[in-house]
Amino acid sequence: MNKNTSENLRIIPLGGLGEVGRNMMLLEYEESILIIDMGFRMPEEDMPGIDFIIPNISYLKGKEKNILGIVFTHGHYDHIGAVPYLIASLGNPPMFASPLAKGIILKRQTDFTLQPKLDVQEVKDGDRISLGPFTVEFFRQNHNIPDNLGLFITTPIGNILHTSDYKFDDHPVNDLPTNFEKLREFGKRRILLLLTESTGAEEQGHSLSEKTIQENLGELFKSVQGRIIAATFSSLLNRIQQLITLSEEHGRRVVIEGFSMKTNVELAKTLGYLKVKKGTIINSKEIGSYPDSKITILCTGAQGEGRASLMRIATREHRFVRLKKGDTVIFSSSVIPGNERTVQILKDEILRQGCTVFHYKMMDIHAGGHAQKEELQQMNDILKPQFVMPIHGQYSMLVANREVAKSSGIPEKNVIVTENGHIVDITAKKFTIEKNLVPTNYIMVDGLGVGDVGEVVLRDRQTLSKDGMFVIVAVVDRQTGKIKGSPDIISRGFVYLRENKTLLFETRKKVIKIVNEAIGSDGAVNWVYVKDEIRNKVGQFLFSKTERRPMILPVVIEV
Amino acid sequence: MNKNTSENLRIIPLGGLGEVGRNMMLLEYEESILIIDMGFRMPEEDMPGIDFIIPNISYLKGKEKNILGIVFTHGHYDHIGAVPYLIASLGNPPMFASPLAKGIILKRQTDFTLQPKLDVQEVKDGDRISLGPFTVEFFRQNHNIPDNLGLFITTPIGNILHTSDYKFDDHPVNDLPTNFEKLREFGKRRILLLLTESTGAEEQGHSLSEKTIQENLGELFKSVQGRIIAATFSSLLNRIQQLITLSEEHGRRVVIEGFSMKTNVELAKTLGYLKVKKGTIINSKEIGSYPDSKITILCTGAQGEGRASLMRIATREHRFVRLKKGDTVIFSSSVIPGNERTVQILKDEILRQGCTVFHYKMMDIHAGGHAQKEELQQMNDILKPQFVMPIHGQYSMLVANREVAKSSGIPEKNVIVTENGHIVDITAKKFTIEKNLVPTNYIMVDGLGVGDVGEVVLRDRQTLSKDGMFVIVAVVDRQTGKIKGSPDIISRGFVYLRENKTLLFETRKKVIKIVNEAIGSDGAVNWVYVKDEIRNKVGQFLFSKTERRPMILPVVIEV
Repeated sequence: MNKNTSENLRIIPLGGLGEVGRNMMLLEYEESILIIDMGFRMPEEDMPGIDFIIPNISYLKGKEKNILGIVFTHGHYDHIGAVPYLIASLGNPPMFASPLAKGIILKRQTDFTLQPKLDVQEVKDGDRISLGPFTVEFFRQNHNIPDNLGLFITTPIGNILHTSDYKFDDHPVNDLPTNFEKLREFGKRRILLLLTESTGAEEQGHSLSEKTIQENLGELFKSVQGRIIAATFSSLLNRIQQLITLSEEHGRRVVIEGFSMKTNVELAKTLGYLKVKKGTIINSKEIGSYPDSKITILCTGAQGEGRASLMRIATREHRFVRLKKGDTVIFSSSVIPGNERTVQILKDEILRQGCTVFHYKMMDIHAGGHAQKEELQQMNDILKPQFVMPIHGQYSMLVANREVAKSSGIPEKNVIVTENGHIVDITAKKFTIEKNLVPTNYIMVDGLGVGDVGEVVLRDRQTLSKDGMFVIVAVVDRQTGKIKGSPDIISRGFVYLRENKTLLFETRKKVIKIVNEAIGSDGAVNWVYVKDEIRNKVGQFLFSKTERRPMILPVVIEV
Repeated sequence: MNKNTSENLRIIPLGGLGEVGRNMMLLEYEESILIIDMGFRMPEEDMPGIDFIIPNISYLKGKEKNILGIVFTHGHYDHIGAVPYLIASLGNPPMFASPLAKGIILKRQTDFTLQPKLDVQEVKDGDRISLGPFTVEFFRQNHNIPDNLGLFITTPIGNILHTSDYKFDDHPVNDLPTNFEKLREFGKRRILLLLTESTGAEEQGHSLSEKTIQENLGELFKSVQGRIIAATFSSLLNRIQQLITLSEEHGRRVVIEGFSMKTNVELAKTLGYLKVKKGTIINSKEIGSYPDSKITILCTGAQGEGRASLMRIATREHRFVRLKKGDTVIFSSSVIPGNERTVQILKDEILRQGCTVFHYKMMDIHAGGHAQKEELQQMNDILKPQFVMPIHGQYSMLVANREVAKSSGIPEKNVIVTENGHIVDITAKKFTIEKNLVPTNYIMVDGLGVGDVGEVVLRDRQTLSKDGMFVIVAVVDRQTGKIKGSPDIISRGFVYLRENKTLLFETRKKVIKIVNEAIGSDGAVNWVYVKDEIRNKVGQFLFSKTERRPMILPVVIEV
């Protein structure tokens, strides 16, 4: 490991490189540490029961006093979601966020008890703050949430530009178009390193403008006679604005459904980020007072989430809203990889009830929030950085972004493709990557537990989910070493016990035999050995009968 | 329910309508039953441990003698896979299949013991068989497996045409192009009902020709210097042929990896469906004897399956093959919905090792086997059926296929959109649908068990997978009704017990208190009540401490 001398800066991604979400990065110069973002991500499919995954901050242990502050790019949970779990153990450093991001951070914090009072300072487009050896200049970038900020950071070794998540949009909704003038000005200041987001780097061309989406949604609003039920992400505030505005234009009242949707709309309205006319939003109980053609239901659940509004509406579990023939359901969102099956099931259920469905594969009624190849290239061309480091994305996206940089004429040797936990040691002239120095393994949040679910617990859950479990309780007479009565068997998730009495009978016989034969010549019994025997022999027996491998847990009680 | 009089025919889909896979359909006229296909499907994500889902055949119970036979369209598992599980209970009726489908059915049967000897008769393009009131004329249809047959069925009420899975391809690989002449001839014979496949009905335009795929793969073979590792479905015999032929053209030896790939290649070679030059296929141990530019590795695992070859190669668990810089990995397959995450993880792992990756989103190196909107419409136009019934697909696909039929000028009232378990009662003039008369619930195969995993077992598995389980064993003195010693606790998948000693200590205290307070005024103990109390109170306690809900299983032993 190079020493952190005054010629070099260390860039340490703790999350977000090689994955989507959990964005968190450190800039370390001498003793000073600046943190950018602190997000969570969703668990993989083989992590049942896990709520979120947050960054591992063990690298920062003992260095709390070196933390100058945390700057946030925007208010999406993959950039702010880990705050309540981590902020206290980092010594509650000062935070810097746009008004909306600040609002979301503070609102979320109220869901957690025993938290320190947060120190969040508001920053806006054009603001500049000094933090030790760094100055950070914030500039607005279009994304699909308002108040998204890119970072221009001066450091003793040169200037670094962090794009944040962004897209170029000449006709955004609820937002000013990209300030290319400003970007060009940054480009003139000589950028040593561009941290460039990669989420859209595998997509050809230019992202769709929100104007196109607005026009297409407008066509739908024009043609639909019945109710419109529009589902989208609750964090997609710009889309929510579009749907509210279109509803107002067509004289439709809007019902907001879903807890997170309601919360976000309320917050954004309060902070002035959503323009809603008085009387537009009505309570779901009032639906009946308006004709179908005058109702829009705006809800969560476009990913087919089981407990979200749209699924509850579709499965007739919603308290006030039922689907009916003539309803038009609009999925104004993409499908997050891994959710394809649940979205399909939801769509089918809606169609079965005679509704019409529109989704992004049928027409452009959703645009992602991320720069695609063309925009990424344009950004490179404007900024002309010496080094480029792709951030935010699966490894394949980082690699795709490297190819974009090469197509912008940046030499491959100047592109830094690296992942969480590696240290990029960079000077004004060169960089080196030191691999796997910083622990970045998943820290899993499960209920109130943070980091207490590890490999063992997770593996047990997977095993239990596949073939269930089989507990055998044998009561043994301490005097004779013989089993008393018949062993108790408790099994779940394996076979339906009532229909498998013979199997249970034979298993009990086997257990009795194993225990009764276990007394050594000296009368002593090795219970560890007996339990192993039960586990192995019963396991083999059950597998031979069923080709399933339940988790076998023997309990021997001496009385 | 209408009686089955000689004016009407009953069409009963037991599987494949409203889902992808598990295709099985009955045509019932008076007492006679003709079965078309008998496939399985893969389980949903919320069915841990389940291997396959097969059709429910309880409708056929008691009617075994009425079964005239089973006709198979082609050898894919979603059309033949349920045979070993169901054939014996149907009284082992005669089966009719193309030579390749027959070969696959018989080969698979050898994996099952205690099976009756199957009676499979070979049928080919142009063959006609008579089965009771039905005659079935087989005609070839392009798909992505050779020897795929559509069915022209004459019945006493009119002619029915079953498309099988198909696409129109003027330049297929390893197969003759579509025989439009024949289709036009069928069209002239007056078709009462067209059973039209729907898997591709949501896709615009025309499916890609295998010729395009061949050309694009050809470009890759021309430009790649190092080894080519090509992953595809083991059932995609036409693609396998393309990859073998291209390898031969470029002087590459071919290593076949993956059990199912090896089996299928062997079978198809034997039956003459794969053309392979002598010496082309080599053993994986011989890889080292050839330069990298002369090696193609053809393997399974394009869906990211954990135990398939490509994953084992990527994770360095394969016995002979390791990835190295310079390798090119081709994913010549689409991603089955639900597999996106695992494919992403696999792709990333391959890229990390410095290999180049090509997949179908980057260029056309995979074509599906299913007719898209344009082809479906063309089929309608050629056949001019009176009634159309979309088959094979999710409900959204059936609905999309209805729209296609309407665009072919078929009146909506003549389109039969229905699902598994409904009975379509059709005469020469009209049809009615009788809903939910036939049980078609999932029959799950798990190891050796067929249908023994039901809702309860599945729900237990889901619960166990989320928060694990917590067994409490309390030994109670029969005389005093008091607990003896400290209750045993066995927990898995909940928390890591060693790090939660306080939690366990407090739980034990709670259990002791509950048991000891349970003696009624008359000295009797209601153990059911005590167990409920333990379950509820310990459940609440653990939830308050962890916000997790493990399955709690109290065991009380009186001694």
